[in-house]
Parts: sequence; C-alpha cells; structure tokens
Amino acid sequence: MAEVMVVVADAFPNYSICGLPFYLSGEVPDWHALAHRTATEIEQHGISLLLDHTARAIEPLARNVEVADRHGHIQRLPYDRLVLATGAVPLQPPIAGLDLPGVYALHTMEESFAVYEHLATRNPRTAVIIGGGYIGTEMADALTHRGLEITLVEMAPAVLTTVDPSLGQGVDDELRRHGVAVATGVVVDRIAPRGHDLVVTGSDGFERTADLVLAVAGIRPSTELARTAGVETGERGAIRVTRAMETTVAGIYAVGDCVETWHRLLQRPAYLPLGTTAHKQGRVAGENAVGGDRLFEGSLGTQVVKVFDLAAAGTGLGEEAARRAGLDALTVEVTVPDHKRYYPGACDLRIRVTGERRTGRLLGAQMLGYWRAEVAKRIDVFATALYHGMRVDALNDLDLSYTPPLGSPWDSIQMATQAWVWAHTQDRVIIAVP
Amino acid sequence: MAEVMVVVADAFPNYSICGLPFYLSGEVPDWHALAHRTATEIEQHGISLLLDHTARAIEPLARNVEVADRHGHIQRLPYDRLVLATGAVPLQPPIAGLDLPGVYALHTMEESFAVYEHLATRNPRTAVIIGGGYIGTEMADALTHRGLEITLVEMAPAVLTTVDPSLGQGVDDELRRHGVAVATGVVVDRIAPRGHDLVVTGSDGFERTADLVLAVAGIRPSTELARTAGVETGERGAIRVTRAMETTVAGIYAVGDCVETWHRLLQRPAYLPLGTTAHKQGRVAGENAVGGDRLFEGSLGTQVVKVFDLAAAGTGLGEEAARRAGLDALTVEVTVPDHKRYYPGACDLRIRVTGERRTGRLLGAQMLGYWRAEVAKRIDVFATALYHGMRVDALNDLDLSYTPPLGSPWDSIQMATQAWVWAHTQDRVIIAVP
Repeated sequence: MAEVMVVVADAFPNYSICGLPFYLSGEVPDWHALAHRTATEIEQHGISLLLDHTARAIEPLARNVEVADRHGHIQRLPYDRLVLATGAVPLQPPIAGLDLPGVYALHTMEESFAVYEHLATRNPRTAVIIGGGYIGTEMADALTHRGLEITLVEMAPAVLTTVDPSLGQGVDDELRRHGVAVATGVVVDRIAPRGHDLVVTGSDGFERTADLVLAVAGIRPSTELARTAGVETGERGAIRVTRAMETTVAGIYAVGDCVETWHRLLQRPAYLPLGTTAHKQGRVAGENAVGGDRLFEGSLGTQVVKVFDLAAAGTGLGEEAARRAGLDALTVEVTVPDHKRYYPGACDLRIRVTGERRTGRLLGAQMLGYWRAEVAKRIDVFATALYHGMRVDALNDLDLSYTPPLGSPWDSIQMATQAWVWAHTQDRVIIAVP
Repeated sequence: MAEVMVVVADAFPNYSICGLPFYLSGEVPDWHALAHRTATEIEQHGISLLLDHTARAIEPLARNVEVADRHGHIQRLPYDRLVLATGAVPLQPPIAGLDLPGVYALHTMEESFAVYEHLATRNPRTAVIIGGGYIGTEMADALTHRGLEITLVEMAPAVLTTVDPSLGQGVDDELRRHGVAVATGVVVDRIAPRGHDLVVTGSDGFERTADLVLAVAGIRPSTELARTAGVETGERGAIRVTRAMETTVAGIYAVGDCVETWHRLLQRPAYLPLGTTAHKQGRVAGENAVGGDRLFEGSLGTQVVKVFDLAAAGTGLGEEAARRAGLDALTVEVTVPDHKRYYPGACDLRIRVTGERRTGRLLGAQMLGYWRAEVAKRIDVFATALYHGMRVDALNDLDLSYTPPLGSPWDSIQMATQAWVWAHTQDRVIIAVP
C-alpha cells in the first residue's frame, strides 16, 4: 500500500474552480458546495493532507521536497515518486494598477472570498472585466445576474477566442442582449483610482469608470517549483511530460494546468489547461506513480461554456486553429434546428465543421445555441468521432437517436457534416476546373 | 440523369410518422407541418410522383411494376432499378373486435385524421391503449395532454421493452405520476361494444370501458408486393437485403421498415424498424440504384422516446438483448447527476452500461432521465463509441466537454463506465477466487 501525502498551499484541498462564477453570481449560495469532498473525506480514503503548506524546492537526487508553513517553518518531505500539480497563475498583462484595491484576478478560493466580500459589503454598481475568455464571459453573466452593470473588454475582434470569430460574435450579441457593454479590439493599459472609483483606460480612447475590476486575461503554467528540480519546460513554458505524465527528471510526474498536454489530433504537445484534461492526467500519473503503466490518450481541447441563454462549445481545431497548425482545412457553417421544427420549442443551432481538404478527415467542430438544446453533448459526439480519426462523411453513418422533441432523423450533427461534404465536393470540382 | 418516379399509395408522399402523437396531442396544430416537403417541392427536384396509386405486382424479368389507381385502373411502369419501401403494417394481435368503430391502429395519415376527427367531434373522455412501446407511451402522453383519462395495457412486466425492465418500470412510474393507469402483464383478448362505449377485456380479469381504443402493439414488415417478385425474406419475415440494400432479385433494392437491417454490433441481420435507419438505407439504395457503390454501415438500434418529463434512450444491446444474443454480458446501473450538483437544476440520470465480460467491449447503454438533461445526445456518444467497437474502459479517455451547468469533469457517461469497470474488476476477482 502506497503512502500518499498531498501538500496544499491553502486550506482548500479540493474545490471546483469552474464553479466560482456561480458562487459569485449567488446561484450557489454556499461555497462549501463547490468542494467535491471535505478534507476529512479525503483523509478517510487514506490520503494525508498537509494544508497551508507551500512547496518551495525539490531535491531530485535526495528525493525530497522542502515545504514551508505560513509561519515560515520549513521541513523536508521524502518521496519515492512526486506528482507536481501546481496549476497555473493569472497572466500579468502589461497594465498599470493591477495591484490596486478593487482589482481582482479571481484565481484562488481566497481571492473569490475577497470578491464575494466586496460584492456583499460595498454594493458595487459597475464592473469592468478585462478578458473575454470563458471566465470573463461567465463572470459577465454572473455579475449581471447580481445586478451590476458590466463592461467586458477583449483585445481580439470578438470574445471567446477558443471558437472562430463568427461564433464569438454570436456570444458578443448574447452579452449585449443582456445589457453587457462589450468592447472588443481594445487593449487596456491602465487602471487608476479616482475617488472611490477605478478608471480603466485603453486603446482607441477606451475609458470606463467602475467600482470593481476583474482582470481575467488568461493564465500561464506555474512552473517555478518544477524548475528547482531542473525539470524541462516546453510548449508555452509548461512542464514537458511524456504520455505517461513523467517529467524529464526521474521520479517526478506532473499533471494539469502546469504541464503541456498531448494533442491527440495534432500528435504533438500543446498547452490546453482544462479541468477535464487535468482529471485524466491525474489518474494516469497516480496510477503510474505506484507502478502502473498507463498512457494519457490525449486531449482535443473539447470545451463548452454557458453565457446567459447560450452554450458555445468546440472540439478539435476550428478554422483559425487549423490554419495556425498549417493544415489545409475547409470550414462550413450551417444554421439548423435542434429538433423537428413542428414540435414546439425548436431553436437554431449554429454549427461549424472543419475538415481537411485532402483527406476529408474531421479536424473539429464548434457549436453555438440555446444551452438546453444539447449543444454540449452534440459536441461530445464530434469529440468521440475525432477521437477515432473519422472522416467527415463517415459521421453520416453514425446511428444517432431520434424523436421529434429532441432531434431529427438526420441529427443536426449530420445536417452539418452533410453540408461540409457537399461543400467539399463543390470545392473539388472548382479545384479540378482550371 | 436518371428519371425517378415515386409511387405512393396515398396522397402523402412525405410526412413524419413519428410526429403523429404530437399532432394528436394538439402540440402540432397543423398536420401540414408534419410534411418535410410538399409534393410540389419534391417534383421541383425532378422526381415524378404518382400519388394514390398502389403497386400490386412486380415482374422482375420484364422489369415492370403493375400499379392501380383508386378506381382500379391498371398500368405497367417499366424500370431499370426498383427500390421497395413498402414499410410495415400493424401487427394484428389475436384480439376480437379490432375492426370495431372507435378502434384505431394509428398507422397511416388517413387513420390519424380519423382519430383526430374522433377526438374533435365526439369528445371522448377515456381511452385504452393496447401496447406500451414507444407509440403507446407517446400516445398516453399525447392524449393525457388533451385531457383524456388513459389506461395503457402492456403484456410485458414493464412498458418499453426496448430498454431493460428496471428503466421500463421508471417509465411506468412516470406515466402513473401523470395519471395514466398502467396495466402491465396483461394480455388483451377482446374489445366489445357496450352502448356507445367499448369494453376491453384481458387476462387476470382485466376490464376497462373506454370511448376510444388504440391498438399499437407493434408492427411487421410489409412484404406482399416483394413476394410477387420472388424476393426472399429473412429475419422476422423482412425482406432479405445485402449491405448494398439489394434484394435477392436482380435490379430490386429495398429499404426501411420492410427490410432486415444489418446490426453493426452483432454483424448479422436483425429487424430494427426505425426512421433513422430508413433514411440511411434510402440514401444507400438510391445511390447504388444509379450506379453508386455504397454499403450501409449498420444499425445499433439507437433510439429515444420522450414520455412526459422523461427521455428513455438506448443503443446497442441491453442486459436482456445481450443474453438473447448469447453473449456473456455484465450490466451495471448507476444513478448520477446530469451536471454538478451545486449548480441549480441538477437531476438524476439512470444509466445502464452493458459490456462483454471476456473482452471488456461495450455492448450497449441505456438511459432514463429528465428529457432536457441531454439524455438523447449522451446516448449518441455511447452510439458513436459502439460504432467504433470501443472497450468500456476506453470511454474514460474520451475528451468530453464540461461546464458546471451542463456536466462534470468526468461526464455522467464516464461515471457510468467507471462504475462498470469497477464492477468488472470485482467480478473478475470473484471469478478468480474459487
């Protein structure tokens, strides 16, 4: 039986970071609900917890880790195998004033409490959110839910750069429809105090006054500790790992937002910090650390976010990502109903299918539609198809379920792949005719 | 360019038979909405329609079809290739009185109009539905929606025999919760008039008086026409076809509810009359009839039905079907949330995973839960996994999407497959210890 000890920098060994927006919106009244398991439950499984201790250095030859408690008391913990799960830290964009009171990066549980406290006691009326990724868009939704007036600022031409701009613009529209002021193409350079307020300024004369500022412009892998062990880093500065989740230093594994992730489609490492991936990598590393022999099967970057009434989801490569990967891709977007139009409540799904021109293989899919219209699990069908390297046309052979309130005899997925196949045929005709 | 003519026995070349319950419930106010395309639209695509003509005989050597109009006028239509799509007809169970006024089998558009007329003009208060398959359960929902008092009679111990009894019983409960009297294990033997009413009697002293009776106890392939051409039949009396959808007679193809269907998992023919399958077979036959070379990739019997607030779905083989197929299967049922419990509206999904003991391969999955909780598309992820012959444990490697309002870092699908893997491990331990 292996002895397992988990060193945790704060007092929260286990909580759903993805749930923070819903705690701050008030939809989750008690933050304790965000923890899957209490510390006691974890210990009952035979795992020792060392809370409020920060790992400061690794000695890979001596095989020990130096940890310090909050008072600076240091001890060295020996290990046979070490798993690093140091996660990520917020990117520090070149913005003056990020350290002002009332500006939050919303990364730790403690910082969430601070925002919660700010919302509860100081009754802010307005907020500026810097960064239109999934945290930024979810927080725009969450704080609108709480009654704040929100301005969301994004550098790119549309929010949610994890999907192609045409769907990102659909999310922009949804945000605006719910009263959020969306400022795209704006680079914030400064936050400054003015009385009790904060003034956020940026490119093109952008200026907005707010009671509260969230700076959620992305994350980078936290690798300081790993580097004390001489561990190599790779893609986007993340810890280099094998598919067995081993680092370049013997006996040390690493998983989650601090590591590079095997991209199943591209067959090379990428930086894809996602909770789903972290869970899978954790199991692989845990199993291997105690003598197992398991490989991480790779990520496709599958993700979904709910923004007000819409879900935006994607898997694999969109048009932009395929181009960046140097692939000759064709992307086709369709608008199709989620179920038979004659049955009440049918709504439009926008689906983008990206496939490789030469081989016809599926590269990715993206979808935007009403959040209860099975957007997430439709993307998961695409993700399962991608996992198996299917050609786009082969998706028409999938035996998918149908009843008029929930689909069509050719599911929306297949309406989209059929449109891709048709466009691909036309495309080839055009190529063939000089 | 091929000349295409479609001979249609009635005046409805194209309508959604699956939509009839929603027309009769009143949810689809205009039956025209059930037609995907009008006759004119079909003809605009270059397809000739011969409506209200019944094909009576095929002369395969002369390559012509004898058709008769409603007045009995006969003509012979020549063909190069013939596609039979004669569908299915209601099973005639050994019940006296099936031909009484007020008793309907609900199979054709015209019969639907008759039921509609009956509902609209005779204001029935009570109905007995014989048969608890998907039409029977949908009609129980539909007529309850219209305010009728419904008794649903099923021979088997639970309704919906397309799923395992434990989920069927869940559907029984849902029907009862909405006021439907469910009589399972009852064989109806007689319908008799009593004044303006109909009395339905059956085994175990079952007796119920009703204004309206629907006899929807299943269907059988309609093969009379095919047999005039000497076409062979196979599974359950359905027309024998190759995976190219060719019958045993040269130049004649057949598709849909009248043919046996290649079961992708069992790798042999089965009788699986489903709209989704019919659409796929139609394309294969159509393509091959004009010189194409395409194979039907097979069915997994994937299906879903909405009954009141629940969706019941399945793909591949359940516990019972696996046993009938002679497979050594292990089935594990779990109850798991559709999304993170801390986010409002989480509800339980009951998921059954069936896998083969020796190989660990997935054989099928079934699910019962709130109809908007992505039950249908979760089953489609299983269907896609089955299409690729995945092992149950490999589903844990699928990169599925996650956001707290719509899932979990390990999706419900994976919670279920993990439970199966765990049970399978225990099972092997038990087998190993004498």
